[in-house]
Amino acid sequence: MLKKIAYQGFDFVEGGVCAVQGFEAAGIHCGLRKNKSKKDLALIYSKQLSNAAAVYTQNMVQGAPLIVTRTNLRNQKAQAIIVNSGNANTCNADGVEKATRMCELTAQALNIAPDDVIVASTGVIGQTLDIKPIEQHIDAVAGMMSQQGATDAAQAILTTDTHEKQVAVEFLLDGTVCRLSGMAKGSGMIHPNMATLLCFLTTDVLVDEIVLQKALSAVAEDTFNMVSVDGDTSTNDMVAILANGMAGNPKLDCIDTQAYQQFCDALYVVMMNLARMIAADGEGATKLVECVVLGAQSKQAAKKIAKSVIASNLLKCAMFGADANWGRILCAVGYSGAALKTNGVDITFKSEAGCIQVCKNGTGMAVDEEKAAEILKQSEVAIVIQLQDGQDHAVAFGCDLTYDYVKINGAYRT
Amino acid sequence: MLKKIAYQGFDFVEGGVCAVQGFEAAGIHCGLRKNKSKKDLALIYSKQLSNAAAVYTQNMVQGAPLIVTRTNLRNQKAQAIIVNSGNANTCNADGVEKATRMCELTAQALNIAPDDVIVASTGVIGQTLDIKPIEQHIDAVAGMMSQQGATDAAQAILTTDTHEKQVAVEFLLDGTVCRLSGMAKGSGMIHPNMATLLCFLTTDVLVDEIVLQKALSAVAEDTFNMVSVDGDTSTNDMVAILANGMAGNPKLDCIDTQAYQQFCDALYVVMMNLARMIAADGEGATKLVECVVLGAQSKQAAKKIAKSVIASNLLKCAMFGADANWGRILCAVGYSGAALKTNGVDITFKSEAGCIQVCKNGTGMAVDEEKAAEILKQSEVAIVIQLQDGQDHAVAFGCDLTYDYVKINGAYRT
Repeated sequence: MLKKIAYQGFDFVEGGVCAVQGFEAAGIHCGLRKNKSKKDLALIYSKQLSNAAAVYTQNMVQGAPLIVTRTNLRNQKAQAIIVNSGNANTCNADGVEKATRMCELTAQALNIAPDDVIVASTGVIGQTLDIKPIEQHIDAVAGMMSQQGATDAAQAILTTDTHEKQVAVEFLLDGTVCRLSGMAKGSGMIHPNMATLLCFLTTDVLVDEIVLQKALSAVAEDTFNMVSVDGDTSTNDMVAILANGMAGNPKLDCIDTQAYQQFCDALYVVMMNLARMIAADGEGATKLVECVVLGAQSKQAAKKIAKSVIASNLLKCAMFGADANWGRILCAVGYSGAALKTNGVDITFKSEAGCIQVCKNGTGMAVDEEKAAEILKQSEVAIVIQLQDGQDHAVAFGCDLTYDYVKINGAYRT
Repeated sequence: MLKKIAYQGFDFVEGGVCAVQGFEAAGIHCGLRKNKSKKDLALIYSKQLSNAAAVYTQNMVQGAPLIVTRTNLRNQKAQAIIVNSGNANTCNADGVEKATRMCELTAQALNIAPDDVIVASTGVIGQTLDIKPIEQHIDAVAGMMSQQGATDAAQAILTTDTHEKQVAVEFLLDGTVCRLSGMAKGSGMIHPNMATLLCFLTTDVLVDEIVLQKALSAVAEDTFNMVSVDGDTSTNDMVAILANGMAGNPKLDCIDTQAYQQFCDALYVVMMNLARMIAADGEGATKLVECVVLGAQSKQAAKKIAKSVIASNLLKCAMFGADANWGRILCAVGYSGAALKTNGVDITFKSEAGCIQVCKNGTGMAVDEEKAAEILKQSEVAIVIQLQDGQDHAVAFGCDLTYDYVKINGAYRT
């Protein structure tokens, strides 16, 4: 299991999305997935109407649930999140109708307004969503909601993920104890289809809805948007947050404050750790590969380079084979599209087994291949690229490319 | 073996780069590769000083041979091409010095000027090139040159390619019989390193050097730049052409002529067929996958979409598994960055076993999965994407992603 990265002032707590006061959750098997041991319907509920914000996939093809959620969030308020796995409800004839119906069913069961429901789906695309299992089980999942239900909900949104992903932190904001937590799912569906990234966050921080959206968008850029499992951007990716304001902190309504920075840091700790979990649990992955770029001429350049390296199939195969093949890294740096001094590139591999520099000023160094292999065999590996172009930096999160990735994604659907 | 795609008016002929009058070639094992059965030094020679043009990798990190070749081609003349495999002579301390030395050695052996030599290397990067095997064998390879040497030369530039790649055509230009031919290598090195694309073309067409460069750059955009084996752009990619003018055609010195279009067509037939061979022989590939985009709003959009589809790891795995997973195609269309009407997308699979439409107006169709699998099991598969946005089209050339790709690229170098 991946160790969480801690930051001073942010204490990890148990309880997932229900670690935050005023939130309940549940997850059940309703019948959308054939395997009865797999939960496929998740519900998150806030006792208070919450301020809400979301970010969506950049894909031109957008899933029906995203279209409906966008509409429902026009007033930036929400009170519940309904999610199914097993069918992405996308690229079919009646997707919007079905997604709207999911909101109505949820609203009826919880006695709230339909447009205060966020809806998301993940699974096969291009097939009609069978709404009956949801109709038949919406009251059951609503009835099962509790403060202990976070893990069930986190499991119900999974597809090829091998385990649920939850992070919750407690921190001080203007002297008030607050909490922020999240659950996420990563990439892939066995039967078949898309890598879909979903993340749902809850917090009791009292925060203005515009400030909330701004913070979420900014932190998503540095975390989920820096994850690459296979370079494919799903039609259904969504990150949403509910802020119920129950912490009682002075309202966070301005971005030029220390409190805003502290709130963004809390978001970063939760979302960065979830991003690492998603990368480490990428389809077929045996290890987490992080690329840290330092000394770049701009934040943009640092991000381009880090993502280019992490997305290289050749590099990903080398990481699988624990092969210190730094040439592939320098190559990916070169085609990243970022401006840089290529003769000022240093490359170092790091892991629990130590660290080893393999490239200095763009030229290879004599390397102890055994030591390098030992470092790269660990389950968490960092590639540190030091440039001589400026002061900016970035981190990208990826994984290796393995036989199992091909197996999972090459299997006949039939 | 891949069937060549023929165009009316262009007849395939045998003889590779030596099918063109005035050209000789040879390929030998000089010792840069450990396996003595693998040739590793190729030489192409033109009896006449030729007009020359080249296009190079877009990678910011550029191999030393490219730097030297660029300098030598400033006067747009060349008479010989020297190429080694086994070492890319890139990202090492003395690359330019060694590449310059290769030109000097070649010039001495052939009694020509050193700056009339084009030099290229492919293989491991970051290691010092041992110049001795080349010094010791340059006279031998020069002595072996003949009109029958094209296949030896084509073999000597290979790395993980499973067979040599040569195409030659004969055609009429302004009533004169002309020839144009080429040899290429595709992607990958077992021990290790980069996917490198090299292509060397010869022709007896009398053509102005500026017109030659323009034609080569334009046709490379539609052929080699539309190949994606794994999305990685090498540091050493190079396409070069020598035009010795011996056909005796009226000099081609203007681009607003039918003769220019005919010459571009000849280039297209040769380079497109070589591009298909490279894609089909991609590392670990079991099949050629072509993506044809029709009805796009611009050439640029058509190319973006075709390349996005062909580069998708998820789609490539599905092609390996002969899985008609059109959702992955629509997804890749969506994130291509091209503007399009997503609800106007039709998708059809084609091969020797027939054709089957799987998506209409952006929505899935009922599909005979058995028939679809039969179509996708063939060694050449086309994905035809019909848009409703305009009149432009493009083709991209790729392959499937297989266990063997991971094996080849995940292996320890040591």
